[in-house]
Amino acid sequence: MKFAIMAGGQGTRFWPLSRETRPKQFLTIAGSRTMLQETVARLSPLAGSGDVFVVCGRQYVDLVRDQLPELKSEQLIVEPVPRNTAPCVGLAALHLRRLFGNVVMALLPADHSIGRVAEFHEVLGTAAQLAERGWLVTFGIEPTFPSTGYGYIHRGEPIAGEKERPSFAVERFAEKPPLETARQFLASGEYYWNSGMFIWTVETVMEQFRRHMPELYEILLALDRDWDDFEKREALFSRAPRVSIDFGIMEKAEKVATIPCKLDWNDVGNWRAVEDLLCKDPAGIAANTQFVQHGSRDCLVHSASGKLFALVGVKNLVVVETPDVVLVCEKDQVEDVKQIVEELRRKGPREYL
Amino acid sequence: MKFAIMAGGQGTRFWPLSRETRPKQFLTIAGSRTMLQETVARLSPLAGSGDVFVVCGRQYVDLVRDQLPELKSEQLIVEPVPRNTAPCVGLAALHLRRLFGNVVMALLPADHSIGRVAEFHEVLGTAAQLAERGWLVTFGIEPTFPSTGYGYIHRGEPIAGEKERPSFAVERFAEKPPLETARQFLASGEYYWNSGMFIWTVETVMEQFRRHMPELYEILLALDRDWDDFEKREALFSRAPRVSIDFGIMEKAEKVATIPCKLDWNDVGNWRAVEDLLCKDPAGIAANTQFVQHGSRDCLVHSASGKLFALVGVKNLVVVETPDVVLVCEKDQVEDVKQIVEELRRKGPREYL
Repeated sequence: MKFAIMAGGQGTRFWPLSRETRPKQFLTIAGSRTMLQETVARLSPLAGSGDVFVVCGRQYVDLVRDQLPELKSEQLIVEPVPRNTAPCVGLAALHLRRLFGNVVMALLPADHSIGRVAEFHEVLGTAAQLAERGWLVTFGIEPTFPSTGYGYIHRGEPIAGEKERPSFAVERFAEKPPLETARQFLASGEYYWNSGMFIWTVETVMEQFRRHMPELYEILLALDRDWDDFEKREALFSRAPRVSIDFGIMEKAEKVATIPCKLDWNDVGNWRAVEDLLCKDPAGIAANTQFVQHGSRDCLVHSASGKLFALVGVKNLVVVETPDVVLVCEKDQVEDVKQIVEELRRKGPREYL
Repeated sequence: MKFAIMAGGQGTRFWPLSRETRPKQFLTIAGSRTMLQETVARLSPLAGSGDVFVVCGRQYVDLVRDQLPELKSEQLIVEPVPRNTAPCVGLAALHLRRLFGNVVMALLPADHSIGRVAEFHEVLGTAAQLAERGWLVTFGIEPTFPSTGYGYIHRGEPIAGEKERPSFAVERFAEKPPLETARQFLASGEYYWNSGMFIWTVETVMEQFRRHMPELYEILLALDRDWDDFEKREALFSRAPRVSIDFGIMEKAEKVATIPCKLDWNDVGNWRAVEDLLCKDPAGIAANTQFVQHGSRDCLVHSASGKLFALVGVKNLVVVETPDVVLVCEKDQVEDVKQIVEELRRKGPREYL
């Protein structure tokens, strides 16, 4: 099995820590390693030194090399121009086919957190078996609350055959639901969160491109013919449709499987999610730095430079300090950090983007 | 008239901006000059270059020299050890008597803000006239709200005689009152805030020491006898009682006057008071630095290093950022910043004091 880690995201919800030049996957959000480094470290002992590949845009190549100095050149898959995930997956599939022929490939986002690593390895094992039998395999994260922020997977019939863990054919994918629907999903016990991690063989996914995204498939074939012509590659890739792998293939394909699991998974989608990754004091204060407080509770504080934080009479805040910005945000409004970034884009000053 | 600026305070309520080594009077809280520099600048054109004197402890001598390089050595009055204001006033009176004989002296805290400078000068003029007639003169700041944080002056009979402004004999001083009492004071129109600024002649105040603080008076006489013996001076001053000028003299003296005035005076007693000194945006946000906000209001932000602040969905906060600390404080609890400083004193780390 080969691992393609997708490190091309440009999220803005971790501003001011994440910047255009250094998005979330390259940051140390919790713990001592960056999220990309964590993602790679989590694969040992499954992955040998040559089994891990990182997919990203040109602007992040230096960051990837800095953070993963052990990576050889051929382990870096560079998107010529930013497109959505379907072209990105196609490029990775071609790259791996040229090196290894028809292997099982796992697509893993570089910016998720997984607490139960042993279970993660177990699921990968079962997924590889299903992939070899022609399935497109998803992780079915068991929901712990009626989230309106994740897409859901509705399971269908169990899949028979010898495997370490039970698995199910996927009945359908559901977009981020309204709260009432999310509650029904949770109550039914038949719905899972879609984590955006996928496992399949190179040939299975190429066949899906041929069937469901013929335009992209032709571009991929052309790319494969002139693999070393970088100018042509950029021109071809620029014509690829901006479509996600979920929309382009997963929702249309027939043989899609899901493996229920817990994983203690967290997509670390915003500052609030970081709370779950940090230890809290008895007053519910989570911090990556030293703090003193008086009459405060349920806050998250993050200092990029290790400053002392002092909290007096405040609750339910996220406070983030970086070398040039201080963010103070009501915890229930962390998604609105995007609005600040939007305003900086529109009105400047752009140096803070 | 000579001006003795008292710059010996060690307030903790402006932590983390104010530190043990650099208290409030040496900081730029609002505007472009430090509070001490503002206090001196406010005296021109009343004061000639040799008319201003600064009283402070040894630990602040270098700061005073840095901030007021035009000051000659004789204009620095150094308290040998920290005592309360009565000994400090006595030392300043002796110092001025030795240089100028029996002059009018104004005692001015180094860390107050005064908006209406022309009115301030006018009151000083009237105060000097009263001082020359033997009065101990106070500023009677007209209260604008029922403050429980200031002491009050109850006025008595008007004082006759030609003066620029009306003045009154003081009936009595009242300590910081409970809210209901403060409301009655405000409604009566006969009470003023005691600003801690005083004007009198050297001989008048020395006579008051003789009458009401004979122990301190003896020490002052001994100091005067051996003025240049610094070792003796320290030994003598160490024996001075730790008593405020208000308690030691003002509350006991008979011929005390007050001059009603507005001044737009602010003792800048805590972070909340700083708000009144800064311009606010339409959402009630006062800042000494650039900020962006989304759904926030009524906050005060202060950055020692000019960082960008971003506020999302928060209200009624004070946020202060210094090179090593970030303070986030509910606006109604700014007085509790003292508790943080107390905790740092008790438990450390002391580097933040």
